[in-house]
Amino acid sequence: MAIIDLNSDLGESFGAWVMGMDEEVMKHISSSNIACGWHAGDSEVMIRTVRAAKALNVAVGAHPGYPDLMGFGRRNMTCTPDEVYAYTLYQVGAMLGVCISEGVELQHVKPHGAMYNQAAKDPKLATAIARAIKSLGGGIILMGLAGSAFEAAAAEQGVPFAAEAFADRGYMADGSLVPRDKPGAFIHDPDEAAARMLKLVKEGTVETPDGQTLKLKAHSICMHGDSPEAVKMAEVVKATLEKNGVAVKNLKEVLK
Amino acid sequence: MAIIDLNSDLGESFGAWVMGMDEEVMKHISSSNIACGWHAGDSEVMIRTVRAAKALNVAVGAHPGYPDLMGFGRRNMTCTPDEVYAYTLYQVGAMLGVCISEGVELQHVKPHGAMYNQAAKDPKLATAIARAIKSLGGGIILMGLAGSAFEAAAAEQGVPFAAEAFADRGYMADGSLVPRDKPGAFIHDPDEAAARMLKLVKEGTVETPDGQTLKLKAHSICMHGDSPEAVKMAEVVKATLEKNGVAVKNLKEVLK
Amino acid sequence: MAIIDLNSDLGESFGAWVMGMDEEVMKHISSSNIACGWHAGDSEVMIRTVRAAKALNVAVGAHPGYPDLMGFGRRNMTCTPDEVYAYTLYQVGAMLGVCISEGVELQHVKPHGAMYNQAAKDPKLATAIARAIKSLGGGIILMGLAGSAFEAAAAEQGVPFAAEAFADRGYMADGSLVPRDKPGAFIHDPDEAAARMLKLVKEGTVETPDGQTLKLKAHSICMHGDSPEAVKMAEVVKATLEKNGVAVKNLKEVLK
Amino acid sequence: MAIIDLNSDLGESFGAWVMGMDEEVMKHISSSNIACGWHAGDSEVMIRTVRAAKALNVAVGAHPGYPDLMGFGRRNMTCTPDEVYAYTLYQVGAMLGVCISEGVELQHVKPHGAMYNQAAKDPKLATAIARAIKSLGGGIILMGLAGSAFEAAAAEQGVPFAAEAFADRGYMADGSLVPRDKPGAFIHDPDEAAARMLKLVKEGTVETPDGQTLKLKAHSICMHGDSPEAVKMAEVVKATLEKNGVAVKNLKEVLK
Repeated sequence: MAIIDLNSDLGESFGAWVMGMDEEVMKHISSSNIACGWHAGDSEVMIRTVRAAKALNVAVGAHPGYPDLMGFGRRNMTCTPDEVYAYTLYQVGAMLGVCISEGVELQHVKPHGAMYNQAAKDPKLATAIARAIKSLGGGIILMGLAGSAFEAAAAEQGVPFAAEAFADRGYMADGSLVPRDKPGAFIHDPDEAAARMLKLVKEGTVETPDGQTLKLKAHSICMHGDSPEAVKMAEVVKATLEKNGVAVKNLKEVLK
Repeated sequence: MAIIDLNSDLGESFGAWVMGMDEEVMKHISSSNIACGWHAGDSEVMIRTVRAAKALNVAVGAHPGYPDLMGFGRRNMTCTPDEVYAYTLYQVGAMLGVCISEGVELQHVKPHGAMYNQAAKDPKLATAIARAIKSLGGGIILMGLAGSAFEAAAAEQGVPFAAEAFADRGYMADGSLVPRDKPGAFIHDPDEAAARMLKLVKEGTVETPDGQTLKLKAHSICMHGDSPEAVKMAEVVKATLEKNGVAVKNLKEVLK
Repeated sequence: MAIIDLNSDLGESFGAWVMGMDEEVMKHISSSNIACGWHAGDSEVMIRTVRAAKALNVAVGAHPGYPDLMGFGRRNMTCTPDEVYAYTLYQVGAMLGVCISEGVELQHVKPHGAMYNQAAKDPKLATAIARAIKSLGGGIILMGLAGSAFEAAAAEQGVPFAAEAFADRGYMADGSLVPRDKPGAFIHDPDEAAARMLKLVKEGTVETPDGQTLKLKAHSICMHGDSPEAVKMAEVVKATLEKNGVAVKNLKEVLK
Repeated sequence: MAIIDLNSDLGESFGAWVMGMDEEVMKHISSSNIACGWHAGDSEVMIRTVRAAKALNVAVGAHPGYPDLMGFGRRNMTCTPDEVYAYTLYQVGAMLGVCISEGVELQHVKPHGAMYNQAAKDPKLATAIARAIKSLGGGIILMGLAGSAFEAAAAEQGVPFAAEAFADRGYMADGSLVPRDKPGAFIHDPDEAAARMLKLVKEGTVETPDGQTLKLKAHSICMHGDSPEAVKMAEVVKATLEKNGVAVKNLKEVLK
């Protein structure tokens, strides 16, 4: 039986600022990537979000980012591997503390924003992240882009790896995402996104803007929860998958 | 045989700024209180300091503080118990991550600065801290002022408690510290400090500025490492205690 | 002819986080208090907000707060007068830079949150703020609670002072606000608020919850812009005042 | 008569952390680049440093950097020109506030660290900085690397420009600095540095590691104040220049 995980970035409120429709999108996913206080989230938001995930049986992941609150962790920074190792260990440790406290397993780590993008292409940074995860023991999964430096680094370090695909993004024939300023970069129609993801899960392929068929491996599909449209897409994707015999399960189940 | 722990606040460098003579003072203590990144310390400093403690067989403690880097966590803030709970859990979790990563046990938690001072007098804040520690399991010790709200909160929550005394401070007859602007507030002479601490460990008493004898319980003695004079005092206190048959051991040993 | 200023706290977005309905409420006020980056706002938000105020002919004020982004500047902190002086000077200087850059006059300074509340009662802090404003020259106005330490400090330092009243709050017979947990603390009905403010402007009085009549001086009325209800109240208050012959003008005009 | 400015980065302490030998090096320079609170410095340090500069008749410059306290502003960040414009305006505005308050002229702006290095090569960033300076009026000088994007941007925006050379660094034949990991990157001997700088000021040339003679324009020489050796070099450079008939004057004088 086909099986897939659905993930979303959550817990991105900070202090007095509210962001995201966490409660709504959490109904339609199986794994959460929860911000750890450096690019978004704060310690109270983390606790609240872990509790909400637990209540809805959504698996908890840490979503560490660069120390760039003003830029939401989206700006490339030239950090050394030692810095990225330390930043990952600190933030994942803080999330691990919340998980222990709430009696929840920390399932995975998915780096955020610029840390994700830079490490996906830089083996040294990807290795630094994989090493930090490995050093915490417990079989914590590293989630990242399929075919990226994350995958190689995880294999090298003996850390379980989960590849993610994006429900609302187009893919090039080489497996990379269509650049944001090109036609086909974004899928806006929930039904189209759902049909694409169903095909991805069932057949392991996705169609490119120029009509080619790309083979793509994915253990998880990333969805957004920052707008009513995003939540709607998550709902439609999940419903479509389940209606067509796909089991939506968290990463630990998918990787079994 | 008389036994005592010696502790010091360490890992207070931040980014490009260096603070403290950590390497020097670490030779003369048995337990370290390591800053967790909010009032001082950063993730790389934390890792470096835990490694140094491990190398010298010094036990590791977390030293969480208020989110006040500019004020070094020394300014009172009106945080709610829920906030203090979350701040403690986050910072101790981050330190726990470093400890797991380095294969070191997290022995204790000692709040820093204003968080220490406010919680020592406020049962709600002390309870919030004790609850956060308890929620992490593993028998982590709460270290704080003898006879303070910390002691009651720890007892109530079933968290092990360790009372600390200060080598360089004078005591009033009621057990409180002599205010910083009063005569007898500070002990500057290392030999005098050592003699006082020896008496404290052997007889459980300390003399007040007006010649009274105060009964004082202490599992640990706090010393400083921020100046050559402070390091000298730590060295003399430790040497004096050991020369007089006192075993200097970490908190876990002392509380056995 | 009766004249009054209407003010609102604006520019409280930060980085990726949006807060407030600035564009909407700005149509119904004459003076803006713009956050300066420490408790809210960032440099880009400041520039954007000053431009929007200029376009709508709304006077610009600086709204400095404590260095407490996580707590939105709402938590009391035991800062020294020297610290509060420096914090005010820095933040107002940054806003002054934006004003010079945009060709706008910096009309006033209104401290935010806990800095406002603590300084309103503490002559040393109020004096520190008044001194920082005075040191910048240019006749910048200090806006604060009527009858508070702000008023005395401004007088002592020779800084122009503007007293503000709150459209949505009840008043005690001694001029203080009804505590938030007491009946009559909040006025929710826009028409009631408008009628109260009209009476305040025309007659210089406001009725207390127990039916007494309080004499109250106000150069400005503070309104909120953080919800559709708040914007509606601002709209109704302004329309009611103008319909009844009150001129809504900025502080410089009111203090002439 | 030959004339030159000597500059140094100062005011880099933060909160409880002390950095730099500001008082010592200030005796040997004519212009100061004072950190503005984002990568180093805080509002109290800024005030203290401006006062010290005023007392010693050292001209005051703003030294803005990236919002990266943990990395001391030394890490490249992919900020947009709009962000860099806003960051510069905010920090220089804050410093301008301190200068107005202390009755001192704000002479110049010299970007710090990674902002300096990235903008020196990126015309869009350099223009953003020059625009921010221009928008503040008052003839504030932009100081930067000779022949860099700063020089072109300043010319384009009509902002006065001052080129700086480095007393302790070697130069390549193309005018760039010898990379830090190559022979000849650093000049350690104060007398050698002084002789090189004297030649630079008198003849407008500096010798490269491979014996070529580079023509180099400099209105100012940058020196360090972070160690006794650095202070010694500043002292020797200044004394050597003056003994050989070079007038050490601040930038405004040099650019006259």
